[in-house]
Amino acid sequence: MTDQSAPLDMLGRARLTGVAAARTMLLSQIADLRPETETLPLDQCLDRVCASQVVAPEDLPPTDRSTMDGFAVVAADTFGASQSMPGYLDIDGEVLMGEAPEGKVARGSCCKIPTGGLLPEGADAVVMHEHTVPVDDRVVEIIKPVGSGANLIRKGDDIRRGAVAVDAGRLLRPQELGLLAGLGVIEVEVFTRPRVAIISTGDEIIDYRQQPPPGKFRDINGIVLSSLVRRCGALIKDYGIVSDDEASFFATVEEAVHETDLVLFSGGSSVGMRDLGEQAIKRIGNPGILVHGVSLKPGKPVIIGLCNKTPVFGLPGHPVSAMVCFDFFVKPAIEAISGTLPTSIITQPSVQARLQRNINSAAGRLDVVRVQLRLSDSELQALPILGKSGAISTLSEAHGYFLIDEESQGVSNDDLVEVYLYQ
Amino acid sequence: MTDQSAPLDMLGRARLTGVAAARTMLLSQIADLRPETETLPLDQCLDRVCASQVVAPEDLPPTDRSTMDGFAVVAADTFGASQSMPGYLDIDGEVLMGEAPEGKVARGSCCKIPTGGLLPEGADAVVMHEHTVPVDDRVVEIIKPVGSGANLIRKGDDIRRGAVAVDAGRLLRPQELGLLAGLGVIEVEVFTRPRVAIISTGDEIIDYRQQPPPGKFRDINGIVLSSLVRRCGALIKDYGIVSDDEASFFATVEEAVHETDLVLFSGGSSVGMRDLGEQAIKRIGNPGILVHGVSLKPGKPVIIGLCNKTPVFGLPGHPVSAMVCFDFFVKPAIEAISGTLPTSIITQPSVQARLQRNINSAAGRLDVVRVQLRLSDSELQALPILGKSGAISTLSEAHGYFLIDEESQGVSNDDLVEVYLYQ
Repeated sequence: MTDQSAPLDMLGRARLTGVAAARTMLLSQIADLRPETETLPLDQCLDRVCASQVVAPEDLPPTDRSTMDGFAVVAADTFGASQSMPGYLDIDGEVLMGEAPEGKVARGSCCKIPTGGLLPEGADAVVMHEHTVPVDDRVVEIIKPVGSGANLIRKGDDIRRGAVAVDAGRLLRPQELGLLAGLGVIEVEVFTRPRVAIISTGDEIIDYRQQPPPGKFRDINGIVLSSLVRRCGALIKDYGIVSDDEASFFATVEEAVHETDLVLFSGGSSVGMRDLGEQAIKRIGNPGILVHGVSLKPGKPVIIGLCNKTPVFGLPGHPVSAMVCFDFFVKPAIEAISGTLPTSIITQPSVQARLQRNINSAAGRLDVVRVQLRLSDSELQALPILGKSGAISTLSEAHGYFLIDEESQGVSNDDLVEVYLYQ
Repeated sequence: MTDQSAPLDMLGRARLTGVAAARTMLLSQIADLRPETETLPLDQCLDRVCASQVVAPEDLPPTDRSTMDGFAVVAADTFGASQSMPGYLDIDGEVLMGEAPEGKVARGSCCKIPTGGLLPEGADAVVMHEHTVPVDDRVVEIIKPVGSGANLIRKGDDIRRGAVAVDAGRLLRPQELGLLAGLGVIEVEVFTRPRVAIISTGDEIIDYRQQPPPGKFRDINGIVLSSLVRRCGALIKDYGIVSDDEASFFATVEEAVHETDLVLFSGGSSVGMRDLGEQAIKRIGNPGILVHGVSLKPGKPVIIGLCNKTPVFGLPGHPVSAMVCFDFFVKPAIEAISGTLPTSIITQPSVQARLQRNINSAAGRLDVVRVQLRLSDSELQALPILGKSGAISTLSEAHGYFLIDEESQGVSNDDLVEVYLYQ
């Protein structure tokens, strides 16, 4: 190893950082970064992150409403009513949908009411249509008693004026938008979406839309990383393909650090290119390199830095390694600088499956093993995809991956493994 | 019940359809609907559905490449090499990144090569840099043997010319776009995104941006359903709020059936409104109503129809019921008409949690119980959110839901339940 920056172990090899330690170091360094905010109309806020707490400006519902088709009553008038001994109530008018009720319900009388209708004054419950028998236009039999508040949603039952409707840091899902619409909140202050720089490096890389001459290869990481970033809800600034030439590479990274909120460069899996990436982050500094090399397979050569409050990632050139590093380090960083509150609930879908062969692993290293799943006699089986290091097709074939953690030296045929699904 | 359309049971009540039966009936009716296709540049294809099989137009990689920094060798020259008995090879040039190798590797010689470099003629393996010791500029010590093919990715190893790169019906994820970019596929035929009509009904409903007079309420379902549809990757055509008036409601539904691929109307939870929705679907017909009422709580009053090959859904007015019906019926229908191949792998994230109270359920009915999750002594606990029927705030508070199936009459405190997470 020619790496002079990382601490060396007794054999003179650069020491690798553990995955959890690397992630913690990164996230603690960027924990206080907060994006700008912007105020948007509610219907443009889907999947954006709320930037300041929204308090309910009014009660929801604003008045007591019926949750059934039936009759608004004074509950006490129905006590003791049954099929054999019905109560009789005078029908005193009807609540119409979309209109305020007229008059009030007196003892011994009731008022026809539809689902969603406003409860008239005097009434304190609704008897369902199914628990009544019509006598004539003016009288109805009540065959089941109701308690006060039955079949009603009370003013403020959904949310009370002054209560927190949506907290800062919450993702605005369909249900949060519905709640805010119900409260008449028509615009929301949200965090701006992070801008992420994508830089593909290497003199051997050309745009995938071009025909490569011998020795050159189409850029794969550019479109893969852009797509992964888009799926995180961030915006892309594409710097295209940059030469290995020190001056142009350094200039591009520096420009990207100034212009965006997070920088990804990839392509440098050769030692020379890794040195160049490291030098660029060191030169911009403030503070510079956080992690250089993690005990992760694939993904070992990742470089993680922070330059002037902008996280900078040097990802391996192999698309498979780059995607693993994205999932483990870049995605959590994008989420952190998006203003999202950390949640303790795991939302990455996983399934248990029975492994179909032995796999060895080095102790102290986290292994990410891609698998295909197949259903056999109602049991899921996991078939590891091995032996094609760096092949992008394996990512497309894989249903997901499982982990062999640092403490383990391998897993055995027939073990149950937790497979995290690619979506 | 005043419903005259559904078959009646012995007590004269309309019979409800089971959830699985309703979904099967719906999906079998629309199984042969296929959307139009369009051809898009690759970088606009993220999360679109591939409409026609893409076959690899060339080998990937197009030539043998090194996967390590090191020396291209004739593998046989390294046999028996060790730290104590190294082999010596003449360094005969260097493969440069991005360039075709010059000359060929003869027995007894080798060629410096970077990761990703093209294997020169004559060589059949690469010795890693770490397993060599430099002697001088012209000679290198090999301290570990390699087999033929070591540290190489062979021409076509990733994918062979003529092999299927992406099948029709596959979602184009970041990894599929990467594979296609690597193959030089610069545009893809994808299915057009379904257009979904959103109609909110009811004279009591007004646009959420307006201040409601007494008796009127802000439309919640419009924005919730639009957002859920957007998250399915479909396009929205918003028909706004339509009056309960028969003529205008029928006209709007008919227009929507002609103009879009799937129609959602909501708001009709009163019996009168449900009748109106049913009549609209019947009048357009061909064939008309598929399901009216399912044994699902919440969500019972859902109406599912098919009119001139357009699925039409009448969703309950309560946002909670509407969202449950969306998840169970509308989402699978949108996926079906999007051209996505059905997959056997469950991708809805779920966690196991310990229930914190008893809940009763009627046999023969599927209950959807929303819960909050909390972590207690490293165990997830599920706290049911009960008692606020129709409250949109409960959807925002809930982390997810669990199911009480048709065979069960309830679940008990301390039972383990599978909680499907809202994302």
